[in-house]
Amino acid sequence: DSNAQDAEQAHFQYTSPSPRLGIGMDASITPIRHGGLSLVQTTDYFYPLVDDPYMMGKITCANVLSDLYAMGVTDCDNMLMLLSCSNKMTDKERDVIIPIIMRGFKDAAEEAGTQVTGGQTVVNPWMTIGGVATTVCQPNEYILPDNSVLGDVLVLTKPLGTQVAVNAYQWLDQPERWNRVKLVVSEDDVRKAYQRAMFSMARLNRTAARLMHKYNAHGATDVTGFGLLGHANNLARVQKQEVGFVIHNLPVIAKMAAISKACGNLFGLLQGTSAETSGGLLIALPREQAAAFCKDIEKQEGYQSWIIGIVEKGNRSARIIDKPRVIEVPAKDRAGELW
Amino acid sequence: DSNAQDAEQAHFQYTSPSPRLGIGMDASITPIRHGGLSLVQTTDYFYPLVDDPYMMGKITCANVLSDLYAMGVTDCDNMLMLLSCSNKMTDKERDVIIPIIMRGFKDAAEEAGTQVTGGQTVVNPWMTIGGVATTVCQPNEYILPDNSVLGDVLVLTKPLGTQVAVNAYQWLDQPERWNRVKLVVSEDDVRKAYQRAMFSMARLNRTAARLMHKYNAHGATDVTGFGLLGHANNLARVQKQEVGFVIHNLPVIAKMAAISKACGNLFGLLQGTSAETSGGLLIALPREQAAAFCKDIEKQEGYQSWIIGIVEKGNRSARIIDKPRVIEVPAKDRAGELW
Repeated sequence: DSNAQDAEQAHFQYTSPSPRLGIGMDASITPIRHGGLSLVQTTDYFYPLVDDPYMMGKITCANVLSDLYAMGVTDCDNMLMLLSCSNKMTDKERDVIIPIIMRGFKDAAEEAGTQVTGGQTVVNPWMTIGGVATTVCQPNEYILPDNSVLGDVLVLTKPLGTQVAVNAYQWLDQPERWNRVKLVVSEDDVRKAYQRAMFSMARLNRTAARLMHKYNAHGATDVTGFGLLGHANNLARVQKQEVGFVIHNLPVIAKMAAISKACGNLFGLLQGTSAETSGGLLIALPREQAAAFCKDIEKQEGYQSWIIGIVEKGNRSARIIDKPRVIEVPAKDRAGELW
Repeated sequence: DSNAQDAEQAHFQYTSPSPRLGIGMDASITPIRHGGLSLVQTTDYFYPLVDDPYMMGKITCANVLSDLYAMGVTDCDNMLMLLSCSNKMTDKERDVIIPIIMRGFKDAAEEAGTQVTGGQTVVNPWMTIGGVATTVCQPNEYILPDNSVLGDVLVLTKPLGTQVAVNAYQWLDQPERWNRVKLVVSEDDVRKAYQRAMFSMARLNRTAARLMHKYNAHGATDVTGFGLLGHANNLARVQKQEVGFVIHNLPVIAKMAAISKACGNLFGLLQGTSAETSGGLLIALPREQAAAFCKDIEKQEGYQSWIIGIVEKGNRSARIIDKPRVIEVPAKDRAGELW
């Protein structure tokens, strides 16, 4: 049950009594003994959620790296891979599937300009997959997440709805579940949404991290297990200024809002609580820079970003307005094209 | 079944086509963009094997760090913790046990002069626990493992037999198993051996790493899941010179050799194939330095080390002689003392 499992993973970070430059939200930042440099590190692991092992490897790698990208770090120095094979796999399944997952992971690492130098495998009833991303940075190479100011806007770089899409795809084989949603979506809708979710999750947030520097981002986080609102709250909580985040727009993988409604808000997609895997960056940007940021990322990658909210005076929390505008992504289906 | 699980974990390391300074045996070494520095990293996770959660946390941390120490690295810049809680724990068990494990891990990290800045927790039917240790080094801060020469001797810094001790301790509650060994050991022997194994596994190999520099070690590895012979073979395989390792002496936690024999070599303890957790460093040292190394470590820590073998001409493999000398550790039981 990938839902139950999704809910049961959590990143944690200690605050240490020793003097530190600062602990990032998504990656830890540790000053080291050498020349003003800091170690920026993150680890993440979770459960397989797509049936294509190669894409699963890419998604895992993209998801691990995303914590560095959320800190504005663009170059990862080294990666490690963490694998638990399921003891319910046959030897043959394992010998076929695991190398493909590893290849996906390595290919995504190469795409990110880094490499996988090691790791650890164990056996467990449930398969888990994850990694560790590490880089050594000068202070100007990362962006602390706590500098948003009144008047900033919030940009999101990937659409929401990955969990809904993955689950709906699994329901194609579960008549009882499928019957609940078949009035609002077709099988083809669901297959397309699943493909969109898969490619979106495998996409690196690296360009977004680069552009955070170019457009003077005031802080960012990546949207994963706690959903958009959970991560927006986490980001709001660490702000130095007394600000609050208000979210007006929800870009959502096409048809997933309809599924979420048909299920009686089972996922909380429109409430911002639906878990995402390898979601977009949520970035606080100066208002006058945000449109240029979105234009630039679309020019470089061919994918939309969205201004979804604003930074106003507040008590360091985030909220979604009563009737947010749902933006279907893509707005129109074009035959033979995903986006 | 902790045996089955122990056998099912493996460290892996890639050799990458990109130019590298060298990949260590136990930790990866990755040159970074800044001033001649390299990232030295390792990750490890496995299953709980002692019933004291605090000691389990310490053992895990010591085991992760050991891979750095095997490279002669004495200072770890940062640690991450990896945890899978078992979904078979009650909420209360989890809320009591997990914080104690984490405290053990953190305390061992502090003892090592480092800190835990983050990590990841998931849920899984089997509990797993592990970590990531990272440091940024100048070239003189680590020792590549491949420089042993004819005439070197091999030193081991902890006794063997941790797996036998942990299993024998579990057998106290399994009459069928216990009946096989009760003729050669008493319950008290087993409880003592278990305590010895637990404290030995929790002990850091840090002093050994420091002394590797002082006494000009030519390379080292740490003895873990593949047993003494497995790791000796791994170390022999990477040597630059055409050498072979011959092992004459096997220091073993008292009475564990007797148990291993009584079980018909189930563990392979005297064949060098019994898995160890957080075992000692196996170090190739110049012959004239080895005794001083052993004396120094005993003076600093109060624990014995042993010269267990020699480096001779060979085909980069390791072997244990036909009838190795078994050294009981400690040689004599003293009332009220473990060692």
